[in-house]
Amino acid sequence: MSNKQIIGFDADDTLWENEIFFYQAQRKFIELHPHIKDPEQAILQIEKKNIKFYGYGIKGFILSLLETSVRYSSNQPNFQNIDKIIKIGKEMLAQPIQLLPHAKDTLRHLSEHYTLIMITKGDLLDQQRKVEKSGLLKYFSSIEIVWEKDKQTYLEILQKNNISPKDFLMVGNSLKSDVLPVTKVGGTGIYIPHKFTWKHEEVDSTFDLDRFVELKNISDLKVWLKN
Amino acid sequence: MSNKQIIGFDADDTLWENEIFFYQAQRKFIELHPHIKDPEQAILQIEKKNIKFYGYGIKGFILSLLETSVRYSSNQPNFQNIDKIIKIGKEMLAQPIQLLPHAKDTLRHLSEHYTLIMITKGDLLDQQRKVEKSGLLKYFSSIEIVWEKDKQTYLEILQKNNISPKDFLMVGNSLKSDVLPVTKVGGTGIYIPHKFTWKHEEVDSTFDLDRFVELKNISDLKVWLKN
Repeated sequence: MSNKQIIGFDADDTLWENEIFFYQAQRKFIELHPHIKDPEQAILQIEKKNIKFYGYGIKGFILSLLETSVRYSSNQPNFQNIDKIIKIGKEMLAQPIQLLPHAKDTLRHLSEHYTLIMITKGDLLDQQRKVEKSGLLKYFSSIEIVWEKDKQTYLEILQKNNISPKDFLMVGNSLKSDVLPVTKVGGTGIYIPHKFTWKHEEVDSTFDLDRFVELKNISDLKVWLKN
Repeated sequence: MSNKQIIGFDADDTLWENEIFFYQAQRKFIELHPHIKDPEQAILQIEKKNIKFYGYGIKGFILSLLETSVRYSSNQPNFQNIDKIIKIGKEMLAQPIQLLPHAKDTLRHLSEHYTLIMITKGDLLDQQRKVEKSGLLKYFSSIEIVWEKDKQTYLEILQKNNISPKDFLMVGNSLKSDVLPVTKVGGTGIYIPHKFTWKHEEVDSTFDLDRFVELKNISDLKVWLKN
């Protein structure tokens, strides 16, 4: 390995499917609660209110679904639904990893030429389990599971690993978490949109276009890096 | 700082109160469910079954309490209890840090002579929040939030931080997590029992007594280290 560039990879919806399981769980919840008029909105409001308690991850999501069920079912409490939501949560937690197309091949190839680090947000246990199940661990020189992917977090990771920002590329499906903060610390953000995006993240800032790249597929990385 | 010894500190029930809040939450749960005959046993069984899904931490505990409520209340479902348990969880998550006596003074003193690292197990968000709220962050050169505190974990921490096992001391209230695995990798385990222990951990192994110290109080560390 001679290239001094370091490539950071987001994991959820960049290397493997993630949001789709939240979406599917939400569909099941909606089927169980036909009496809730605007269920997506109801869930979203409770999730937003709870983020300061629960953070990101499946357990917090399930606790928010349970709270939504209770709050919106006072006229027709259904105790079985509570049990069913808990089961939905366990199914999510036990869900096998579904790698995205070309993720493995691309990592295998790139790991021969670059130092790769995984930088992912969420519950420590959930994420560690996913990394281990994924079979991708061997391609990464380190795994960073962080609380929030903001400018400060990236600065700390660069400092800790002794990486110069100009040598740092970050690949991910989130403009807000993977691309924008990296461009702001002087690195390059490589945006690979995920085909399944039901809730758009709002990004207010403008991009430094010199530090921003959009690719269609993770397999395009090999080609782009050679240019 | 000239001393090459590195001191690892457990956090929950070593530096601040923790188990007591789980205990108090369990008391509240029991009051809400007078119809459950052996509630401690009921909760414990469900917690044990769920550890592989939820890991350690408040959110998993609350999900287990919710499941216990549902499973043991089929004859008299009480929807309000679900709401109350969710509230108990949020109170736990918002609970201010209660430092244990002498924890702060001891850390302040030791940090002038030794390199201190915090090694704690649990949910990443919960633990990061606690570390930040505790005001103790400044005494530690690094914080390790780990999934499981076993031999392998300690070996990895020692390796990552370039620490020789013979220079490593680990201070904590758990024989199983803080003391035993550290003695097994060649470090010294310093056991400081917590006054509040309602569920004893089982430890099968015998100790290498050369590598094991029991102190009554964290403030005794200063005296012991001088010997």
